[in-house]
Amino acid sequence: MSVEGPDRELLEQPWVPMCLGGIQLLVKSCFGDTVYRLLLSDMQNVWEEQVDATVIQNRAQELNKRLHAPVDAFFSHLCTVARPLLAGEASTELVENGVQPSITLLCLRPDLLTLQLKSELAGVPFYWEFRCMQSSIPVVCSQLVRPLLAVSRVLQKQVMELATLLSRKDVEIQDYRESGAVLSRGRLHTECFDLQHYQETFLTQVLPKVCAVQDCFGFDTTLQWLYGAVTVQGIEEQEKSLVSYPVEN
Amino acid sequence: MSVEGPDRELLEQPWVPMCLGGIQLLVKSCFGDTVYRLLLSDMQNVWEEQVDATVIQNRAQELNKRLHAPVDAFFSHLCTVARPLLAGEASTELVENGVQPSITLLCLRPDLLTLQLKSELAGVPFYWEFRCMQSSIPVVCSQLVRPLLAVSRVLQKQVMELATLLSRKDVEIQDYRESGAVLSRGRLHTECFDLQHYQETFLTQVLPKVCAVQDCFGFDTTLQWLYGAVTVQGIEEQEKSLVSYPVEN
Repeated sequence: MSVEGPDRELLEQPWVPMCLGGIQLLVKSCFGDTVYRLLLSDMQNVWEEQVDATVIQNRAQELNKRLHAPVDAFFSHLCTVARPLLAGEASTELVENGVQPSITLLCLRPDLLTLQLKSELAGVPFYWEFRCMQSSIPVVCSQLVRPLLAVSRVLQKQVMELATLLSRKDVEIQDYRESGAVLSRGRLHTECFDLQHYQETFLTQVLPKVCAVQDCFGFDTTLQWLYGAVTVQGIEEQEKSLVSYPVEN
Repeated sequence: MSVEGPDRELLEQPWVPMCLGGIQLLVKSCFGDTVYRLLLSDMQNVWEEQVDATVIQNRAQELNKRLHAPVDAFFSHLCTVARPLLAGEASTELVENGVQPSITLLCLRPDLLTLQLKSELAGVPFYWEFRCMQSSIPVVCSQLVRPLLAVSRVLQKQVMELATLLSRKDVEIQDYRESGAVLSRGRLHTECFDLQHYQETFLTQVLPKVCAVQDCFGFDTTLQWLYGAVTVQGIEEQEKSLVSYPVEN
């Protein structure tokens, strides 16, 4: 992980939608040098796990009693097998070898979310469990609340800019009309854009449909792209504005 | 509070920006029948307090040893004095009487945020403390994460709709131009709108400025309005989709 710490590394990762055991989840993962960090949310709760070499060694032995290997081998295997799965990619190399590693949801409670990885290491089955505890509110603020507020601000700015562009188009169209120009086909005629009227119509007609999807799958490709743009852009600003809790009792 | 419970009541309240002791905070409050609930965030953390009649009676006596009154009188006073302050309104009635109730930030730590109210009750000073503990991740998801994702989705939908409208205007303008129409003033001319080019330009030129504000004050009036629209609309959908943690270990 970089000198800026695991929070920044994780902030730069995209949220990957996964469906495990019928549950929609958003997953972020970050693999470093014999450490990994995992963050998951079902939009009702957020869980995370951060493990180091010691935990990896102990848990690998606990879950694979007959396997003896140095921690580097376990971690390297996790990187090869789990990292692409958690990033929403299939590991083509392993599929070609006929071994299909899989991740399943073992447990989902407010205080614990466990994912089980089944794979094969050196010709024998290899098991791993990602044991994620409930995350912390500062992490939720950093990884979800502030970026989503920034995404909203960016999109709101775009709506205002596009509304201004529409008004300029209307002025141009009005000038053509006043000069006596007529359309070759009537269906090309557009109504003058009125932002307030548009917002009111949108509120009653479109908003209910959009709001019907308030789950992980609402975090679509475009929003993911904007999430990435605002987090990369915002990291410096966020670090500058981090409150150091100056008021103590 | 309604039969739907305090979560829904609180969800329907707007986030009110406040600046206390130089700290920007977003505040939500909800006063019921001798109970209140308060939710605060500095976008790094979230705190909340929910108190009932017993807590009100005990704390009012603890902080105002010489004042003896039934809990109804204390609560009624809190409603009259604190509710408008927490809703970002000034209580004109009290200002006219020459008594200026005020709220100050006593303590801001990750685990505790305390606000002190100073006012006057029956002619003597009356003190109250809002003692907010760190909130819970499900509350943060419900009150911030899911609504902000819904706001983003709504705005993203608007951007796409306005882009489509711009393209239709361009087709109309093109038809006028091809019929030989000319503008009375050259400055009314607009360039053909290209969404991809717009997004790319926006990313490099506008986004950095928008992302510079990733704090409470970024939650502006328009976003507040949208927050209200999506939460009211989304409450039914959210209740329908509430995961009951079906996977247990």
